[in-house]
Amino acid sequence: MLLIRLSPRQKEIIKIVKEKQPITSEQLAGKLSVTRAALRPDLAILTMTGILEARPKVGYIYSQKPSNSIVYDYIRNIKAKDIMSKPVVMEEETKVYDAIIYLFLNDVGTLFIENKGYLVGAVSRKDFLKIAMGGTDMNQVPVGVIMTRMPNIICVEAEDSAYIVAKKIIEHEVDSLPVVEKIMEGNKELYKIIGKISKTNITRLFVKLGDDV
Amino acid sequence: MLLIRLSPRQKEIIKIVKEKQPITSEQLAGKLSVTRAALRPDLAILTMTGILEARPKVGYIYSQKPSNSIVYDYIRNIKAKDIMSKPVVMEEETKVYDAIIYLFLNDVGTLFIENKGYLVGAVSRKDFLKIAMGGTDMNQVPVGVIMTRMPNIICVEAEDSAYIVAKKIIEHEVDSLPVVEKIMEGNKELYKIIGKISKTNITRLFVKLGDDV
Repeated sequence: MLLIRLSPRQKEIIKIVKEKQPITSEQLAGKLSVTRAALRPDLAILTMTGILEARPKVGYIYSQKPSNSIVYDYIRNIKAKDIMSKPVVMEEETKVYDAIIYLFLNDVGTLFIENKGYLVGAVSRKDFLKIAMGGTDMNQVPVGVIMTRMPNIICVEAEDSAYIVAKKIIEHEVDSLPVVEKIMEGNKELYKIIGKISKTNITRLFVKLGDDV
Repeated sequence: MLLIRLSPRQKEIIKIVKEKQPITSEQLAGKLSVTRAALRPDLAILTMTGILEARPKVGYIYSQKPSNSIVYDYIRNIKAKDIMSKPVVMEEETKVYDAIIYLFLNDVGTLFIENKGYLVGAVSRKDFLKIAMGGTDMNQVPVGVIMTRMPNIICVEAEDSAYIVAKKIIEHEVDSLPVVEKIMEGNKELYKIIGKISKTNITRLFVKLGDDV
């Protein structure tokens, strides 16, 4: 995997092509006051990456679909299912104290709460700390009382891109998102949790991107 | 910013060049049973990206330094100083209860603890939750008693790459790292905290990478 940053001249070429398309390499060379030979490598990069399209006998045009080329958005092509972890789940009757113990034993930041096999809520370390501060008897209160409840949980699906997942994590200011499968039961939509993606998964993926280069 | 993935033929070319370098485009074309003209775009990409080097009258050789070209490791070139946030700092005499309140008010996951302007410790939401569970009187105990103390804190510096920071976050299983400036006082090394980078900063950067494409 390689990351390329366009040079100022390549950016300038794109700008000119956008304005004047179709435009020949000769016309481009004239506008930039360079020889056609000097432009050749830049035009090679820009067509190979699919940014520009070279139409025989017409000239260069700006392409709207770089995905057809060897360049594509790697980040947008990694799927949630490729980077998700096993979710840690509990029942909503579990007492807060036991849930916190379970959180520590599994070394996660968020517990997902199920009822009859379907996602009904989520509780984060932050929620637990708030409760612990408040003097609540944690041995009495079930986790279902303090959790964030559906439909107020942001979910993603297995085929969503890592990019979409990361964007949702940032926009909704959460640490972790459940990866779910939607199931219709009558006219009711239910969610089966099949994984979770946290900022840790995204950070790990980021490191992997750097490793790959 | 563009991400490019090499085509199978481009990978094959790199493999052949590594084995047979220096090798001319004619020899390469022969090995791949294609015309020289057909190879031209691939060789353009491979030399522009700095993977191969074209030596006049010698042939193609495999280059060890792609950083000289327009392609470079973007991730490794973003600096800690470019993505760091303002750290939330407290004094070690602060009582645990007040520190937790401060943590919530600033909506962060980690507090950094200073003494006379220098970093001496760090406390995370996880540390606080552990204390809250233990029945400690949070109004009596100062945060300095429960914090992770220097030199057991992993630090990074302003010029470190985002890649290095993310790698340290994953390897040391922490949520947040302080960005420090090292100062010598006699033969003692002191750390001035100038920023912090959490998994949130890395996730935000990841989203930005996707946005840029």
